[in-house]
Amino acid sequence: MKTGFIGLGAMGAPMARNLHRAGLLTAVWNRSADKAVAFGAETGVRVAASPADLARDCDVIVTCVSADGDLLATLNALAPGAAPGLTVIDCSTVAAATAREAASLLAARGAAFLDAPVSGGVEGAKNAALTIMAGGAPADFERVLPVLKAMGKAATLMGPVGHGQATKATNQIMCAGIIQAVGEAMAFAKAECLPLAAVVEALGQGAGSSWYFVNRAPFMVKGSYPAGFRVRLHDKDLKICRDMAARHSVALPVVESTLADYQRLIDAGHGDEDISTIFRLKDALFGASGA
Amino acid sequence: MKTGFIGLGAMGAPMARNLHRAGLLTAVWNRSADKAVAFGAETGVRVAASPADLARDCDVIVTCVSADGDLLATLNALAPGAAPGLTVIDCSTVAAATAREAASLLAARGAAFLDAPVSGGVEGAKNAALTIMAGGAPADFERVLPVLKAMGKAATLMGPVGHGQATKATNQIMCAGIIQAVGEAMAFAKAECLPLAAVVEALGQGAGSSWYFVNRAPFMVKGSYPAGFRVRLHDKDLKICRDMAARHSVALPVVESTLADYQRLIDAGHGDEDISTIFRLKDALFGASGA
Repeated sequence: MKTGFIGLGAMGAPMARNLHRAGLLTAVWNRSADKAVAFGAETGVRVAASPADLARDCDVIVTCVSADGDLLATLNALAPGAAPGLTVIDCSTVAAATAREAASLLAARGAAFLDAPVSGGVEGAKNAALTIMAGGAPADFERVLPVLKAMGKAATLMGPVGHGQATKATNQIMCAGIIQAVGEAMAFAKAECLPLAAVVEALGQGAGSSWYFVNRAPFMVKGSYPAGFRVRLHDKDLKICRDMAARHSVALPVVESTLADYQRLIDAGHGDEDISTIFRLKDALFGASGA
Repeated sequence: MKTGFIGLGAMGAPMARNLHRAGLLTAVWNRSADKAVAFGAETGVRVAASPADLARDCDVIVTCVSADGDLLATLNALAPGAAPGLTVIDCSTVAAATAREAASLLAARGAAFLDAPVSGGVEGAKNAALTIMAGGAPADFERVLPVLKAMGKAATLMGPVGHGQATKATNQIMCAGIIQAVGEAMAFAKAECLPLAAVVEALGQGAGSSWYFVNRAPFMVKGSYPAGFRVRLHDKDLKICRDMAARHSVALPVVESTLADYQRLIDAGHGDEDISTIFRLKDALFGASGA
């Protein structure tokens, strides 16, 4: 299966490297040419002249870009080279509606599309340990499984195109609520003068526990928030969730309160810290009271 | 160590049974005499005439009552029998300030006090698998460890009197935030027509996961909320958290929004369901929009 890759960023480059290791990678393209040239020099993989050139040479193309507009611009550039037999797998996090628009755009050229956003961060990308949530036709999903398995530890088809993105959005909403819960609880514990490391130890085994509590409450204990999952990126994802909820005429309380908190954190220069930095705001609730 | 038990309710009765099995239980007392008589008939354990009578006969008394006022009333009734050498362990969930008041009341008679709220529910009480968060003097804690170990799988001393309750309150705040997060995310997933059981499976291994997601999102999938942890009980605990936060002049957002939701659930007749029933309100957010 001749595979191409577009978008050699922090996530994309290690994902492309894993495709290369699996013997699947035929060529790459990147909007900033220097990254593609460096990747080509490192791996010996051909750098395509354009997305359309890449499409003509491949059976599968994986895209991993920053935002909804980037994805559609990339696919418009790719379309002239697309033909029946080509499948595009988009691993970006975008709105479900954007994924459906992408699928239409490719269907007009007879090509297939899967939305396949990932979770697991840069660490998961490097270790081929991503969790992949896909949307698309079952036959398309089955056909490209070797490509997905070269990048992730688990790939699940969640339904038609858009359902991968909706599943990722569900996860991002849950993360927002949990970091609020953990931040507020830890700020309370600190105000009550509890030994915070012992609190994490004692409650980490219980029914109130979560991945974020066990792995990120220690950041709050130390007052240091190395990314991790940057505020700026979760903020972008939550704005997608907000837009998706707005299509149901709903404003989601957890999403809205977290976006408001993130704006304050970004304004204060904490946008590149891990999202557990939300503890700063919760802690200040108590600090401001003079308690 | 001659141990007495006061408060043979849904939690207390199985906890007292485990003390009896460990050969520690000397006598019991209960406000409603019929429960004490039944327990005595079942186990052969003596029923004390009063809390003071129980105190005169025991080295340790475990209390497990419903609310702050009940605890102080019980200890006032017990005080005439209290003397140096007696340690009272309170396993109720009350405010940290109430625990400190209880300790003063007993200190006036030369007796020791530990606050030792538990988590793990009725199931944990039955299986001696409770997590116990204690506050008090280290020597008192060490001395009564055999009693704590007969009731729980883990007991941690979190600091002076009140710190057990503050740790429990931290856990209840976290549970409130997580059930909000899981409820909102699952309602979004349903509105997006995702296959909900597959969502739980796909996201349950990831960084957005939690004990509540893995164990209670399936209740949301089925639309059935067997207790569990009843709304009414978590509501009571969160009101303690609210009062504790108010002493710092703080209103905690997650606590306040969850209390508002619980009031709506109780008013609608769902107060005895598991707290995952909060999904009803989140789901209705989307339903009400006609989406």
